[in-house]
Amino acid sequence: MIPSITEIKVRGYHLDLYGHVNNARYLEFLEEARWSFAEESLDIDEWQRRGIAFSVVNININYRRPAFMGEVIEIRTWVSKLGNASATIRQELVLKGKETPVADADVTFVMIDAKTNKPIPLTGDIRAAFAAGQNQTVD
Amino acid sequence: MIPSITEIKVRGYHLDLYGHVNNARYLEFLEEARWSFAEESLDIDEWQRRGIAFSVVNININYRRPAFMGEVIEIRTWVSKLGNASATIRQELVLKGKETPVADADVTFVMIDAKTNKPIPLTGDIRAAFAAGQNQTVD
Amino acid sequence: MIPSITEIKVRGYHLDLYGHVNNARYLEFLEEARWSFAEESLDIDEWQRRGIAFSVVNININYRRPAFMGEVIEIRTWVSKLGNASATIRQELVLKGKETPVADADVTFVMIDAKTNKPIPLTGDIRAAFAAGQNQTVD
Amino acid sequence: MIPSITEIKVRGYHLDLYGHVNNARYLEFLEEARWSFAEESLDIDEWQRRGIAFSVVNININYRRPAFMGEVIEIRTWVSKLGNASATIRQELVLKGKETPVADADVTFVMIDAKTNKPIPLTGDIRAAFAAGQNQTVD
Repeated sequence: MIPSITEIKVRGYHLDLYGHVNNARYLEFLEEARWSFAEESLDIDEWQRRGIAFSVVNININYRRPAFMGEVIEIRTWVSKLGNASATIRQELVLKGKETPVADADVTFVMIDAKTNKPIPLTGDIRAAFAAGQNQTVD
Repeated sequence: MIPSITEIKVRGYHLDLYGHVNNARYLEFLEEARWSFAEESLDIDEWQRRGIAFSVVNININYRRPAFMGEVIEIRTWVSKLGNASATIRQELVLKGKETPVADADVTFVMIDAKTNKPIPLTGDIRAAFAAGQNQTVD
Repeated sequence: MIPSITEIKVRGYHLDLYGHVNNARYLEFLEEARWSFAEESLDIDEWQRRGIAFSVVNININYRRPAFMGEVIEIRTWVSKLGNASATIRQELVLKGKETPVADADVTFVMIDAKTNKPIPLTGDIRAAFAAGQNQTVD
Repeated sequence: MIPSITEIKVRGYHLDLYGHVNNARYLEFLEEARWSFAEESLDIDEWQRRGIAFSVVNININYRRPAFMGEVIEIRTWVSKLGNASATIRQELVLKGKETPVADADVTFVMIDAKTNKPIPLTGDIRAAFAAGQNQTVD
């Protein structure tokens, strides 16, 4: 499977004290890319009608190389692990056209019933949707 | 009347390309200070129960001097104008202890019924609450 | 002249308490659009080498209609006023394809010498570049 | 050793689509708390003069419970691991006065020479400063 691709150009307001993209800002870049992925692979409008929401439980992010003003970051996003209760999305950020690693993250989430805030097992059409957006091993 | 006072220390993640607090970030500083003001002067929990919400219609902000890492900004917030349909909150930012102007803003807002999204006239207890938080002329 | 066009899709992290794009976030949308405008119309790399930087002195923004999750905002950006000391960029935000006004802003700025932090008169090639990105009256 | 304590009150602009503090925003809360910690325990002004900067290489954050409008989060920050090349800061977020866990994170960083961008070994006065801000085992 081909990962979902999102591009973000680094702007002045993304930077911090050191002239690098701030480490909090990367989590917005990751979220932007996950919404793009979700739009491409999942029926999120239908899920929203059914009151099903994402709930991130862990983010583990490595910062590999600072990103600077004007650089274009390519974010690759895919489902890397699909358990019964939780799943993991892998996101890799590289300088576009150069493959230089900038950052990478594993984002682990559960699906919840937005009314009760209780987790929903990853079964049925929800599981099928994530499995289709997956290009690695299921455990 | 004494304005509501909020202090914010400038951190690395507030800065941008130029090593100055980014101009979007000031609007978060202003919002932080307005929530402090609201907590001190208004019964916002009660208003929330009644389904009354703030809706900002205009912000006019002057940037007077860049703010740098480690500086402490004092934000003074008060109701400067109280009309029948809308009101204006004045917010002035200075370097704490030095009175050096950093920025100032007029924030004009209406109160809305959160269900219908329609404006509510500034009358009754709502008007009284803002009038008590006001230290300038009523028009 | 045709304004510079930037599109932004509203995401979950752009929203606030009320489920609307937060009013501070709009200033990031505006900055994003101004960088796109600058790349299209100005030689900002060359200006950076000469130590010339933008310094925003005033933003006056009207919030016309809340923007919600999933909506696509089109931002139109152009130079609306070109004085000797300062210039104004006009930015209008509409729902893409519907022309519904979401917000509009006048952003007034000066150019400064990044070393001395002193304003530079808007003359010569700097003026010419802004004039080319302008579609309204010069004063 | 007593951890450094920072308090943050949840405001409308911290929330997202779901009415919870957005997961990117937590990284700003963590950074705020680390700057407070650094001011209390380290001579960061002196380090800045010597051209020594922090560079975060990994953040591993668990989201335990959503945080809502008006809640006060207490962030506890301390050095949990001090290696020769890198160190880890532990940060735990709880509801103030209730001990309810909201999130916790391990933030691994190196110190770099800001001119060369090369890591600096954690020795001498730098090591001593972190050791003083540490309350767990050194490896």
